Amino acid sequence: MRADIELMPQDVPDRKGEGKVFVVIDVLRATTTIIEALSNGCTDVIPVVTVDEAFDLAKRLPREETLIGGERGGLKVKGFDLGNSPSEYTRDVVCGKRVVLTTTNGTKALRSVAGCENVLVAGFTNAHAVVQRCLAMNANPVMVPAGGKGKFSLEDVVCGGMMMDLLKRGGVALTDAARASCILYKAFAHDLLEMARNSEHGGKLIQLGLEEDLAFCVQTDISSSVPSFREGSVRLG
Amino acid sequence: MRADIELMPQDVPDRKGEGKVFVVIDVLRATTTIIEALSNGCTDVIPVVTVDEAFDLAKRLPREETLIGGERGGLKVKGFDLGNSPSEYTRDVVCGKRVVLTTTNGTKALRSVAGCENVLVAGFTNAHAVVQRCLAMNANPVMVPAGGKGKFSLEDVVCGGMMMDLLKRGGVALTDAARASCILYKAFAHDLLEMARNSEHGGKLIQLGLEEDLAFCVQTDISSSVPSFREGSVRLG
Repeated sequence: MRADIELMPQDVPDRKGEGKVFVVIDVLRATTTIIEALSNGCTDVIPVVTVDEAFDLAKRLPREETLIGGERGGLKVKGFDLGNSPSEYTRDVVCGKRVVLTTTNGTKALRSVAGCENVLVAGFTNAHAVVQRCLAMNANPVMVPAGGKGKFSLEDVVCGGMMMDLLKRGGVALTDAARASCILYKAFAHDLLEMARNSEHGGKLIQLGLEEDLAFCVQTDISSSVPSFREGSVRLG
Repeated sequence: MRADIELMPQDVPDRKGEGKVFVVIDVLRATTTIIEALSNGCTDVIPVVTVDEAFDLAKRLPREETLIGGERGGLKVKGFDLGNSPSEYTRDVVCGKRVVLTTTNGTKALRSVAGCENVLVAGFTNAHAVVQRCLAMNANPVMVPAGGKGKFSLEDVVCGGMMMDLLKRGGVALTDAARASCILYKAFAHDLLEMARNSEHGGKLIQLGLEEDLAFCVQTDISSSVPSFREGSVRLG
């Protein structure tokens, strides 16, 4: 096994996934939100790219079983049930419900690997569980940090680096990019919240009054859920 | 001023360069070779993408003033005057000559910024000089590591990180990607040769019997030359 990470978002048409497991990471906040929703009994999350797609899809689903969530510019979209703060996705709100989700970066990253057989969803909150799953699969892990509008995102790469560190301890070889992410993780491991606060994306969320989300999103291993993305929806198992 | 680095090769059609200075880095070995050639009196280096282009262009130039150099699979191409080892480009060989150069990654990276006004060529060998030039220009530096066949290249990003460290000391703000490269540089600064030896690209060069090139390419600041790429050719000044 050999693990790799895409340090910047890659535009790969018709991505091939043979022998690989893709691990999509959008710490702030889409994948953390998906993990939290599914951990709290949400049946499945359907990631869509545009706001219009979200409304169109929700119309075709049973209203009482469906929630629309996500953000534009970091804020809840008018007419949506939920924003993109993981703390909104409590058991009371999401248990037994399906969520149609659209966010600026995370849902795009998921759609970019939609054609691949093995796609997992990760954040700090379920990092160990995702690594255990990867080690149990006979496939080469490829971390896919969502990035920010096509650019590098520090918090996603640091999260990927945390998983690389664990994979390495599990006997997995690392590419140079994976080794680099591991070094970045170790540089920030002593204070992940400070790392998130000082990141470009974290700074924007603080300006929007969403600082509490940062503290939620850097919690390590509060969930053993491993969401996988297949046939257009994200579910546990 | 704010400095950025592209941690993986980006496919940007018609790249806009307004207000920016692009710094192309291919430590192993194209940009190190270009710096060495120009430092030793070569008049200009013309980077071309394919071997056929190299032969075609050389045919149209005066034979006695023109050298063809470069590599495929790391090795000198049959019919070329020179390979891609910087130590081949001595004063005896290149002084007063023009070099038509084609390499697997470095010349492609140069062509990707060919339409931009400000493009500099950097390696460890001229890092301080390039940073001084950047500080003197009123433009935002964007480091462009050449990568390896579209993938991350550790040695180029570490070299970019070294320049970021110097730019930061010069009062330049850094993006998250630039900060990350700086951390990577600091992790390897104590032994750049070991970093190069253990890198994916370095390992391939060692297998080809080109280990001496690694020691050459990680020498820091042996040149004050700052090559710039404009109108299809790389020259000093």
